[in-house]
Amino acid sequence: MKNAFKEVTGSVVAPQGFLASGVFCDIKRLGTGKGSDKGPKRDLALIVSEVPATAAGMFTTNQVCAAPVKVCLEHLRAGRRGQAIVVNSGNANACTGRPGLADARAMAAATAAALHLPRTEVLVASTGRIGVRMPMANVREGIRRAAALLGNAPEHAAEAAEAIMTSDTRPKQVALEFMLDGQRVRIGGIAKGAGMIQPGMSETGRRPAARPLHATMLCFLTTDAAIGAPALQAALQEATAQSFNRITVDGDMSTNDTVLILANGLAGNSAARLRSRASRDAQVFQAALNRVCLDLAQMIVRDGEGVTRFVTVRVEGAENDADADAAARAVANSALVKTSWFGGDPNWGRIIDALGYSTAAVNEDRVDIGYSAPGSRRILWSLRRGQPTRATFEALCAAVAANEFDLHIRLNLGRGRAVIYAADLTEEYVEFNKGDVSDPASLGG
Amino acid sequence: MKNAFKEVTGSVVAPQGFLASGVFCDIKRLGTGKGSDKGPKRDLALIVSEVPATAAGMFTTNQVCAAPVKVCLEHLRAGRRGQAIVVNSGNANACTGRPGLADARAMAAATAAALHLPRTEVLVASTGRIGVRMPMANVREGIRRAAALLGNAPEHAAEAAEAIMTSDTRPKQVALEFMLDGQRVRIGGIAKGAGMIQPGMSETGRRPAARPLHATMLCFLTTDAAIGAPALQAALQEATAQSFNRITVDGDMSTNDTVLILANGLAGNSAARLRSRASRDAQVFQAALNRVCLDLAQMIVRDGEGVTRFVTVRVEGAENDADADAAARAVANSALVKTSWFGGDPNWGRIIDALGYSTAAVNEDRVDIGYSAPGSRRILWSLRRGQPTRATFEALCAAVAANEFDLHIRLNLGRGRAVIYAADLTEEYVEFNKGDVSDPASLGG
Repeated sequence: MKNAFKEVTGSVVAPQGFLASGVFCDIKRLGTGKGSDKGPKRDLALIVSEVPATAAGMFTTNQVCAAPVKVCLEHLRAGRRGQAIVVNSGNANACTGRPGLADARAMAAATAAALHLPRTEVLVASTGRIGVRMPMANVREGIRRAAALLGNAPEHAAEAAEAIMTSDTRPKQVALEFMLDGQRVRIGGIAKGAGMIQPGMSETGRRPAARPLHATMLCFLTTDAAIGAPALQAALQEATAQSFNRITVDGDMSTNDTVLILANGLAGNSAARLRSRASRDAQVFQAALNRVCLDLAQMIVRDGEGVTRFVTVRVEGAENDADADAAARAVANSALVKTSWFGGDPNWGRIIDALGYSTAAVNEDRVDIGYSAPGSRRILWSLRRGQPTRATFEALCAAVAANEFDLHIRLNLGRGRAVIYAADLTEEYVEFNKGDVSDPASLGG
Repeated sequence: MKNAFKEVTGSVVAPQGFLASGVFCDIKRLGTGKGSDKGPKRDLALIVSEVPATAAGMFTTNQVCAAPVKVCLEHLRAGRRGQAIVVNSGNANACTGRPGLADARAMAAATAAALHLPRTEVLVASTGRIGVRMPMANVREGIRRAAALLGNAPEHAAEAAEAIMTSDTRPKQVALEFMLDGQRVRIGGIAKGAGMIQPGMSETGRRPAARPLHATMLCFLTTDAAIGAPALQAALQEATAQSFNRITVDGDMSTNDTVLILANGLAGNSAARLRSRASRDAQVFQAALNRVCLDLAQMIVRDGEGVTRFVTVRVEGAENDADADAAARAVANSALVKTSWFGGDPNWGRIIDALGYSTAAVNEDRVDIGYSAPGSRRILWSLRRGQPTRATFEALCAAVAANEFDLHIRLNLGRGRAVIYAADLTEEYVEFNKGDVSDPASLGG
């Protein structure tokens, strides 16, 4: 089915009827703006459908959630419809109390006014410093200019992708084209995220389970598929579960994590055929959405703060899937495992130590640990049934010297499995995050 | 009551009837031994009571637990008695299977033979590389020499304290003297630990709760108090709960964490008066043991790998103590919070973010965050009821510029409280732990 997907340019404006723009309006109030030689980095984006659209979202399960997340939840509850998304970087509008919530609502209202839409058709997202009020005059002026600059060329999408970046070193965009019900359908997306990354999002912003999962990551998706709101929400939930909710950079879950999708139906496929999740059409749409989300999620990990290695942790043979997830996250978030990845050191002692303190059932005499190239099943085992294999230290070092590799862990206790996309812990991460005590504006960020 | 405790020299040999020694026997098989100008660092220690003693222990709850831990559990089950402790550094004897277990038993047997004791009166501990067989010929020769060198001068204890060090930059020793039942009683101890530190020990090595707590840390305590085994175990459990089980350096719980205490009764107090935990004598003994354990636990955090700051995280007002503990650990183990401590950055946004993703109930509008000098109740609040205070950025920076400070978090939801002793995350930690891929012997360590 994968071969039926074609990559196309334009990300969020690739689907029919979508417009985007990105402007600089000095959200951080730097005065002039921290700029590249092309001018200051943009910091406010609009993504707009020319026609009414269904909408769905997934949100941080952090109990401390930002004002824009609260506004999205309100607006989606009002009818699961949305025609515009307004996003700023530089200020998270988190821990800003009632005034912050009023600011987020005012962002939606200003966007609605500029685009002549009902206010509840506008979704809002923010990323940046925590605990600082939004510079609303700058925001309002930014929204007016962004609305005037909307367009459907790939440059417009690229400007939006730039505007949502914070510590990201590069924009993250993807779009796929595929056939559905005889019609050409496209899904496009942009994302941001580099630190404070271990999302655990749910539809309601409430935790499904007692255990917390753990960035700010933002992702905005567009599609011209015709699909009802419940089917769209279900599809987004599944796509998020196997992508954004499976990544970790530093184990810190943000107050602002948000994934939004707008579906405007202009492709002309039958929405009815997507209603049953078992239908072939629903499966094709799901597979396409999964791939768009996984591509963007992996871009976030690869661009993580100070990251030099991208490691896919694959746990199999756990007593159940929850145990597999716990085992994979314990390994992926262990400071000692992550620093050994940075060093290219195939240290299985730290891995088995992390497995042992995870909440997963583990029997050290049954544990297998091995390495492969990304996606390959040709595994070089360093440990089988708890005992070191004859693999040489040189061969193991070569396996983990790659910038990207898969770590295979088999607990051999049952059929539970899980995959976590993880990164190393580097001196650059520490340097980047130790803060700038010369900058009072960094207080909450 | 604190004033009744007098610090004395000699750590584990300060109490009457205890002997110690430390030798170099090349556990890492370096050939010559990595040495200071005074000769190679010692790597095998003995601590011995001249007369029979009661014994108690606390052990890692990591499911992957090292062979010496298993041997201690066996020997303590056999009668809660112990007259000697043999400890090596350089090899953890973890993940070494049945042969490793046989090696740990052989260490006990060799010590028993050298000291003419029953085998089950010997307790064993190891720290160092994981997954490497013990060099038993070296170990046996080391035990013979250590037994011949036993003595009760402070130098003997200092040699034992050196022998148990791994990445520690300095030995950790303490001893207190106090009066019990009209008799002069002493408790002494040595400890080691610098990385892979977030112990969660229990008496049985099994987890008391579903949630894991999370070094290798080792601690060996001696006392000349007369105390029955059940009272000794109960006292050690309480002392561990408020000391070693409340520290974290990197959130990684080791396979080898062990605390052992031997009580030989030579002080001549009444053991019967210690039987009821409510008795005044029991309370005095508990307070002394608590202080010895807390002193040693704090030395471990201060000597943590790359650590530049020692932070006491004090959570109050949680719905219950378990929530307070979860909140404090989330903050103390957050990579973003720890890097901001390194930078001396009073970033409350990261703290409230970590509180929000912890399993503790948190209401952002009620959270207070502040700083004080260690142990002081003069708190400089940066956040009250979720809102930034008027404290200036300069004042907050000055509060966290100290090498040691207390972080006060009040959730204002209930009466639950917890204290966690934590450290910053530095480039030196990453540099130290990234491994040495030129050294195959580092594979499991």
